[in-house]
Amino acid sequence: MADDLSKRKLRMAQIGGGPGAFIGAVHRMGAQMDGQIELAAGAFSSDPAKSKRMAAELYLDPARVYGSWEEMLKAEAAKPEDERIDIVSIVTPNHMHFAPAKMALGFGFNVVMDKPMTITSAEARELKAVVNKSGKVFALTHTYTGYPMVKLARDLVKQGKIGKVRKIVAEYSQGWLYQAFERSGDNKQAEWRTDPARAGAGALGDIGTHAANLSETVTGLKIVELSADVSTFVSGRPIDDDANLLVHWEGGVKGVLHVSQIAVGEENEISLRVYGDAGAIEWKHAECETLLLRHPDKPVELWRRAWGYAGAASACAAANTRTPTNHPEGLIEAFANIYMNAARAIRELAAGKARDAVRFDFPTVDDGLRGMLFIEAALKSSKEGGKWTKVGG
Amino acid sequence: MADDLSKRKLRMAQIGGGPGAFIGAVHRMGAQMDGQIELAAGAFSSDPAKSKRMAAELYLDPARVYGSWEEMLKAEAAKPEDERIDIVSIVTPNHMHFAPAKMALGFGFNVVMDKPMTITSAEARELKAVVNKSGKVFALTHTYTGYPMVKLARDLVKQGKIGKVRKIVAEYSQGWLYQAFERSGDNKQAEWRTDPARAGAGALGDIGTHAANLSETVTGLKIVELSADVSTFVSGRPIDDDANLLVHWEGGVKGVLHVSQIAVGEENEISLRVYGDAGAIEWKHAECETLLLRHPDKPVELWRRAWGYAGAASACAAANTRTPTNHPEGLIEAFANIYMNAARAIRELAAGKARDAVRFDFPTVDDGLRGMLFIEAALKSSKEGGKWTKVGG
Amino acid sequence: MADDLSKRKLRMAQIGGGPGAFIGAVHRMGAQMDGQIELAAGAFSSDPAKSKRMAAELYLDPARVYGSWEEMLKAEAAKPEDERIDIVSIVTPNHMHFAPAKMALGFGFNVVMDKPMTITSAEARELKAVVNKSGKVFALTHTYTGYPMVKLARDLVKQGKIGKVRKIVAEYSQGWLYQAFERSGDNKQAEWRTDPARAGAGALGDIGTHAANLSETVTGLKIVELSADVSTFVSGRPIDDDANLLVHWEGGVKGVLHVSQIAVGEENEISLRVYGDAGAIEWKHAECETLLLRHPDKPVELWRRAWGYAGAASACAAANTRTPTNHPEGLIEAFANIYMNAARAIRELAAGKARDAVRFDFPTVDDGLRGMLFIEAALKSSKEGGKWTKVGG
Amino acid sequence: MADDLSKRKLRMAQIGGGPGAFIGAVHRMGAQMDGQIELAAGAFSSDPAKSKRMAAELYLDPARVYGSWEEMLKAEAAKPEDERIDIVSIVTPNHMHFAPAKMALGFGFNVVMDKPMTITSAEARELKAVVNKSGKVFALTHTYTGYPMVKLARDLVKQGKIGKVRKIVAEYSQGWLYQAFERSGDNKQAEWRTDPARAGAGALGDIGTHAANLSETVTGLKIVELSADVSTFVSGRPIDDDANLLVHWEGGVKGVLHVSQIAVGEENEISLRVYGDAGAIEWKHAECETLLLRHPDKPVELWRRAWGYAGAASACAAANTRTPTNHPEGLIEAFANIYMNAARAIRELAAGKARDAVRFDFPTVDDGLRGMLFIEAALKSSKEGGKWTKVGG
Repeated sequence: MADDLSKRKLRMAQIGGGPGAFIGAVHRMGAQMDGQIELAAGAFSSDPAKSKRMAAELYLDPARVYGSWEEMLKAEAAKPEDERIDIVSIVTPNHMHFAPAKMALGFGFNVVMDKPMTITSAEARELKAVVNKSGKVFALTHTYTGYPMVKLARDLVKQGKIGKVRKIVAEYSQGWLYQAFERSGDNKQAEWRTDPARAGAGALGDIGTHAANLSETVTGLKIVELSADVSTFVSGRPIDDDANLLVHWEGGVKGVLHVSQIAVGEENEISLRVYGDAGAIEWKHAECETLLLRHPDKPVELWRRAWGYAGAASACAAANTRTPTNHPEGLIEAFANIYMNAARAIRELAAGKARDAVRFDFPTVDDGLRGMLFIEAALKSSKEGGKWTKVGG
Repeated sequence: MADDLSKRKLRMAQIGGGPGAFIGAVHRMGAQMDGQIELAAGAFSSDPAKSKRMAAELYLDPARVYGSWEEMLKAEAAKPEDERIDIVSIVTPNHMHFAPAKMALGFGFNVVMDKPMTITSAEARELKAVVNKSGKVFALTHTYTGYPMVKLARDLVKQGKIGKVRKIVAEYSQGWLYQAFERSGDNKQAEWRTDPARAGAGALGDIGTHAANLSETVTGLKIVELSADVSTFVSGRPIDDDANLLVHWEGGVKGVLHVSQIAVGEENEISLRVYGDAGAIEWKHAECETLLLRHPDKPVELWRRAWGYAGAASACAAANTRTPTNHPEGLIEAFANIYMNAARAIRELAAGKARDAVRFDFPTVDDGLRGMLFIEAALKSSKEGGKWTKVGG
Repeated sequence: MADDLSKRKLRMAQIGGGPGAFIGAVHRMGAQMDGQIELAAGAFSSDPAKSKRMAAELYLDPARVYGSWEEMLKAEAAKPEDERIDIVSIVTPNHMHFAPAKMALGFGFNVVMDKPMTITSAEARELKAVVNKSGKVFALTHTYTGYPMVKLARDLVKQGKIGKVRKIVAEYSQGWLYQAFERSGDNKQAEWRTDPARAGAGALGDIGTHAANLSETVTGLKIVELSADVSTFVSGRPIDDDANLLVHWEGGVKGVLHVSQIAVGEENEISLRVYGDAGAIEWKHAECETLLLRHPDKPVELWRRAWGYAGAASACAAANTRTPTNHPEGLIEAFANIYMNAARAIRELAAGKARDAVRFDFPTVDDGLRGMLFIEAALKSSKEGGKWTKVGG
Repeated sequence: MADDLSKRKLRMAQIGGGPGAFIGAVHRMGAQMDGQIELAAGAFSSDPAKSKRMAAELYLDPARVYGSWEEMLKAEAAKPEDERIDIVSIVTPNHMHFAPAKMALGFGFNVVMDKPMTITSAEARELKAVVNKSGKVFALTHTYTGYPMVKLARDLVKQGKIGKVRKIVAEYSQGWLYQAFERSGDNKQAEWRTDPARAGAGALGDIGTHAANLSETVTGLKIVELSADVSTFVSGRPIDDDANLLVHWEGGVKGVLHVSQIAVGEENEISLRVYGDAGAIEWKHAECETLLLRHPDKPVELWRRAWGYAGAASACAAANTRTPTNHPEGLIEAFANIYMNAARAIRELAAGKARDAVRFDFPTVDDGLRGMLFIEAALKSSKEGGKWTKVGG
């Protein structure tokens, strides 16, 4: 009898996410929140001992903890269909995204992966081809687009609530790298994220792609060209930690996008404002359950998650909500939305639904490629004195 | 070989939480978030068909879905130690709290239960005796005390940061029952929560106990006496939907506690302010990641979750945190904290740690009894024209 | 030729407001802001030297600075009509309200006076009779009702935007008297405001009357009865510094009103929430330019001062506005509104308009009497163990 | 006997500010708020009838209402010293700034003028020379620097509270010109402010100079160069209505400055964030009484106006404050601060104090010139495809 995905939880393996990592645990919590996915295997670290230690903490079957991701993917692929994993969750540093993703897809596994997608746009283009050929689901965790109020924002813009878009202000400000913590010896996150070999870009890659993706997702408008002023403020740091950009989106839309890792005292302040010719929307991570809708001459509207009116305006926002109003949801739930939607797509495809009929309500390989093109254009523009540079031209 | 709880996930059964229920799913998500507990059995509804349907959605082993909670508890108790459940999660309407909790504890299971604990203080006193006799863990989901910033508030008060407490303002305002939705025919929540037979009290029980518990937890001061003005604003409703109280806490502390289910347009606005003779703290659910600390003549301090300084002031706040700053956490994580702490206590007790040495960092049966005494005093005072009435005197 | 008030600024004398006073200067700035009123005379202090010093700072004609208010009122009354003052601004401590107001009105002067109106309700009743007999304008500076957004709130409630009112939460929290600053020797404000002989009541009089007046003004509903818990937290203080009240307004409206001068770290936090059966409004002094309008199931509306839509809903709000949106207005402008509206009424009466046709858009002697009745009921209730007590019954 | 300015109010004449104007009334209210200055003369409109009408509303002596500003300046200059005006307040459209200012200074009058200072930097340079030669006071109403919390911000930065400045984010967003209201026939403000002949620049001049001035004032760092993307979004409008800039300030500071008049739904949202290597400050007009001070790892501090601690950190902030905490002050008070400080400087100079010893705590002709250089650099850069362009190089 064929393995029926509608009758069981999907089985997930994780690559990365070992002791001391941050995002791996968030992926696991998000993936398992809705009871649709269970962690079944892992190669949590390039150090097998660490991987085992992590597995024990997670009460994972020791037989399915592997010394390396290659070993895991091969071993799992060799298992019978009703045992082997369905999904590979890739949460390694950026330079270790491409190879495992490619192999996993090659073996017919679905992939959920952290961003930025790769180290170069060349890798990104190749991965896109691999995904398309595989027929599998590939989700990229641009988490902020997992928030219900961001989905609502997108739907309100699509419905014309703010008219034709004119101006965008996108920002992501952090302060956690305001000093050279990468040289403190005990900050793994800071180490790899400021290492060009492992991270590719710095602020541009880690948070710039989030801000760019948020702007494109909510408005449906792609960044056409940009003029960038990319900086490294911390002395001796070999990678960018701040970037200010003038941006042109499709349709004559203009605006700014600025990101920083040295905005001392800031937390994870990603925000988006979109001004149309008939209204404006504003979303801030710090108040992620609220969406502001501004009008030319009516009271400002505070849209709040989980009310009937919000669901009436965006079925998608309603479908990505778990608790009543002001029973706050947050980042883990936003991750859970990406996994939940990926799981649904996987189940639907497995059940034979046509790819065209499946809703991919999560960032895909196309978003991943856009991110790499954004990074490369920004670095090029800045190097050339802020010259206006096409994105992916 | 003895079953070693340190080597496996704890197994949980749920009573209640069937299709259409809200809080059952939140309990399940919270319980499973950290990978410490797995759902292993369920009697999700008094209707066995509904229970089975729920189980299928959860991919639960059909053999462990039961037609009734009595059946489940007996069957699970009869299983060998290394198979049977460890925890019973009780999320039924209030009138169905006492009996299953008593039986579960009698069989040696640990219990996590929704509030208010029982329908009468007599039941509550009996349950307290049962818990004490059982030697098991009993946790009551006064969820708001699961928030890290509430734990921080408690610790700051304990450390004397605001001096001697003088005044408290506690509030819980909702608007969801501003009309008689219980008569609409399709609102199960409204139906049972406004039915005296199933809910006991209305606003006083559902949210009044939360506000009272929050005030006692944060300050460590018990409510001594109160003067209540309890109302039913919705015509024909057989239960209270609003209550305003003058309150005296231990140590000469005075203040107000007001709750409402007819505060139309409000979400789940629970908040607490505590004024001492040297400072004040303020916490609001709508900004659950922030704690305000006010000083006599220094800038107001916005304490935020997950910073080093917050962890330095409260190890407990740090231990109940999963994501970095402004990667918001919310209600499900607050539930997860109660389950996580209960799971730790269960594991420690199972490992032979003395009960006195185990930290019960969650609301217990004592909080549950306090809640029932609070409800009864408030109803009595209001009936007697607002006469000052001792709580549990 | 008769003195034509339409052709000149109104002339104002001030009683009180000498060096070191706070509210006197605010009255002067508010009175003169719109160019309708000019300061023409003064008895700023019971100490003539201080009065002269103040007058010099204000570049006032030395001939019109007086050694006492009696002297001033008599001297000004003796001047020819086209020279003498039109308005007396009384900003003395409370015990010095009644006598000068009575004499000023007796001489045919209009009066703008600080609150609370008197020391006893007997004085208040007498003053009411004096005002009525005088045919003059008497305005009491319950300043918060001078804010445009409070006027808007009143008009929205009147228009039925929130349906039938059910519940009110009124608050005024301050922290400035959290210690015995009245014994520091250099805090005049603290001294007289905590002296029963000069202030009458403490927190109840100084800020309780503001909260009560705000609730009655916005809803148009009078306080019927109350149950009070009045306290003195600072040891040795001979007057109340905190009060918590359960309140019933006309029409079956219930709620709480709590005020404090020992809410350490709080500024001048007066706020009002009114819940109807179809919506709710919320106004907070800390965000005085915003009015929240909540709906059962629509986005929360943030009404902001000076927009077209706000003026369309409340001509009165528009008429009490001086700057465009988010060019903030504040307390001085709220005072200016009371003076501006009083000046208009004075001019209209002087021009022969019938009293009934004149709009008194400011707190009057009736509000002043209500305040005294409120204070007395609260003190009586608290003394009698919180017994429900009629206000002015 | 010589005219002694210490013994009387300063006499002010206003040029502009006739019926329908907005900013003229704000200047008058600000100027007269503190009783230091009185309106004594006016040429409120180029239409003498309108000017007279305005004067009547202001109860101004008809003999001192003039048909034109030239007439007024000459007539006043011809009056004896103890009658003639001391200050000229110029509130005309931008193209009418230079000539009256030059003439007024030439006659020995002090000038307070609205911004931007002139139409060209050439005019600005000439005016600077005129001011310097005159020995008189010239104040430019970059109002936002009149707010006490902005003065506090400047002082905290100066004291090193945020370390060495690294990044600045400056913004001024409005929505009031999101459509072509200048063609509606009844919006004078929109008409002249979008007319290149009268306004010079559009958004850049009206609000861009405010944002630029705010950044330079608070940090003490001048803008060195910029790369601009200046736009006109409203079809047919002959002037800029939006501008996004990358900016370099002195000392290697980088950041963005963006302004808009088509940010529909926005009010007058000017804000400034300054990130140093040891902390950060943030001020927003919408919460003008609060200054945020962020630290690397301490609670965020909310500094509030009028507390003792704020005055201890900035005597200047304290000196520019009129009411206690949370008795809000706003725009008119910010204007009043500029006039109050200008009046003090005028009195001190008149009393013979050396110019070097006088504190000019208001924007001066130097700020005005900086503004013109900023506008010209931005327009040039944008025209040249965003080329990095020196400001005033």
